[in-house]
Amino acid sequence: MDFDDTWYPATHPSGAVLPAVLALAEVLPQQSKPSGMDLLLAFNVGIEVQGRLMRFSREASNIPKRFHPPAVVGTMGSAAATSKLLHMGSAQYREVLAIAASYSGAPMANAATQTKPLHIGNAARRGLEASYLALLGLEGNKNILDMKSGFGAFYTDYTPDMLLGLDSYRWVLEDQDVAIKRFPAHLGMHWVADAATALRMKLLEENLPVVKIKKVVLKVPDARYVKRPFPASEHEARHSFQFNTCTALVDGSISEESFSDLNLHRQEIRDLLEKVLIENPHDNHSNFDTMYCEVGVEMHTGETITERCNTFYGHWREPLSQYDLLKKFKANASTVLSMEAVQGIIDTVANLEKVTDCAVLSSYLQVKEKTN
Amino acid sequence: MDFDDTWYPATHPSGAVLPAVLALAEVLPQQSKPSGMDLLLAFNVGIEVQGRLMRFSREASNIPKRFHPPAVVGTMGSAAATSKLLHMGSAQYREVLAIAASYSGAPMANAATQTKPLHIGNAARRGLEASYLALLGLEGNKNILDMKSGFGAFYTDYTPDMLLGLDSYRWVLEDQDVAIKRFPAHLGMHWVADAATALRMKLLEENLPVVKIKKVVLKVPDARYVKRPFPASEHEARHSFQFNTCTALVDGSISEESFSDLNLHRQEIRDLLEKVLIENPHDNHSNFDTMYCEVGVEMHTGETITERCNTFYGHWREPLSQYDLLKKFKANASTVLSMEAVQGIIDTVANLEKVTDCAVLSSYLQVKEKTN
Repeated sequence: MDFDDTWYPATHPSGAVLPAVLALAEVLPQQSKPSGMDLLLAFNVGIEVQGRLMRFSREASNIPKRFHPPAVVGTMGSAAATSKLLHMGSAQYREVLAIAASYSGAPMANAATQTKPLHIGNAARRGLEASYLALLGLEGNKNILDMKSGFGAFYTDYTPDMLLGLDSYRWVLEDQDVAIKRFPAHLGMHWVADAATALRMKLLEENLPVVKIKKVVLKVPDARYVKRPFPASEHEARHSFQFNTCTALVDGSISEESFSDLNLHRQEIRDLLEKVLIENPHDNHSNFDTMYCEVGVEMHTGETITERCNTFYGHWREPLSQYDLLKKFKANASTVLSMEAVQGIIDTVANLEKVTDCAVLSSYLQVKEKTN
Repeated sequence: MDFDDTWYPATHPSGAVLPAVLALAEVLPQQSKPSGMDLLLAFNVGIEVQGRLMRFSREASNIPKRFHPPAVVGTMGSAAATSKLLHMGSAQYREVLAIAASYSGAPMANAATQTKPLHIGNAARRGLEASYLALLGLEGNKNILDMKSGFGAFYTDYTPDMLLGLDSYRWVLEDQDVAIKRFPAHLGMHWVADAATALRMKLLEENLPVVKIKKVVLKVPDARYVKRPFPASEHEARHSFQFNTCTALVDGSISEESFSDLNLHRQEIRDLLEKVLIENPHDNHSNFDTMYCEVGVEMHTGETITERCNTFYGHWREPLSQYDLLKKFKANASTVLSMEAVQGIIDTVANLEKVTDCAVLSSYLQVKEKTN
């Protein structure tokens, strides 16, 4: 999930919803198989619910200190999407969300460990489970979304609002698009990657070798969770401002490979990590909308160079090109699917509105022996 | 679970642990089937971990406002017990608890709904799942128990302590026994039940009929969660000071039947509910160790009678007799098991230390057609 889309306020919205609606579509009986439009609507409801819930807390706007957002709003999103696909009415829908709240939440401290991807996997399955339990008649607290001892338990400043009627309703996604990562690491790493890569270009232009760096100064938001001077594991490295800066300075780019054990423990990376200082400017908040990153180096020979990134490539203000988006999808999907299946998914998704039975998507998703 | 044992600080300790260790014992291969002693040790470890964790927060000493304790410490207890039964070493045990933390927690607002029993069922299965995931090699945050963003996410005042070494270690259960409920309702209801039952005796002695009551004044702790003037469902009635007081005044006792739809909506109960006033004395805290209940009635004819309960029958300071404990077990268990199985379980548990293969317990637990 370190490669998942990322939203603002921070969560990974699709990962909790897409597997749940696809799994449900697969098991629904033939006469009620959802169309591509049904799937799209359910998926978007699942995304929307997450965006709305995060707007009920200011705490959710920053990198949270207690609960990992995909485990909180993700479960609710999966519940909302699957109950939509099951054509539930509003009374039953209320029970679904109440039950799903009892399946929500996981501590932030597990977010830079192998347990992190489990959070979003569990969110997907638990939301679906909540829908089925409501279908069986289970009831929860009907006011769960309005109570501090309900969904508010996950935030210190939860203040739910009435929503507008559907006639004047505007979807969150219309105003706030998602960011797409270029490499599998915490989103914040993309700011330091772009700044450090630009800085490395300047070093090359001026014939200044990386080994001659005396000091690296990083100006980043104060987020303990991604401040790790000497990451010991792949998962810690994916959540380290310092490691991502040093890798971009040494290699000129960051990829999945950068987090392999071999690359993690390279002497030149370790040497450079020793030279990194972190500063937290007061105007730089832990917030994916406004944060920035400045990387400055001082050379043993006296030169200083600084580069700043306000908006990385892939951020919602500077979206990936369709070409780069498909390139990412193909690279990831082809590790588990045949090239025919990868292309089939791309073609199906491009025409999803016109697909009459979305089970075709599941058929491509069967993990097979690669044929090429 | 409204009939489960209750501890102080408040949780239902056995319900999350016993099903998990029994299920695990059942699937372990023949050559490593646990003995009765193994089962007892694992069970007690599961209880102990819950007691220890609740001592790391003062918030846990009162009826909590945000998270339902069995969903928080129960999951950890199930994880601890099952990993003990799987003979894990301390390094792996650390991972189990870290993973289990990501499976913990459910909002308090669902605690008086049908979703409440799901909390403890989920705690049992999730703790077991965490053990298996650690067995497969999954890792979480090794410091999860020491962090505010770890297990501390569930409390506002979490302050973990180092524990003493095993040589001088004293188990929580040695100092703090559990309460056993006499009827299936929130533990707090047992105080009002005993006070109101004693009061009804006095009314009878003095020939004062319940219908002539003008006013009922209840002095109980200020716990919104169990203040429900007109409960609409069985689950709400099990969590209503008012309803339990009125039932004990009208019927002289409370049993499972008291919460049936028929009894819930009786006119005489509804009439009496209209007359109940609640007061929250400052010295009466939401705390199962120190709380008390005083029921006072004023008659239309002018008389006033008051009864107070400091310790109900079944509380750890006034435990059920072995006879009453077995009576409760037989009454509950015989609704799903044959009398032979019920007696078999009683005999096995009485000699659990000497049982070589505790699978015998599971064999009794198969739900069968009743033979008598």
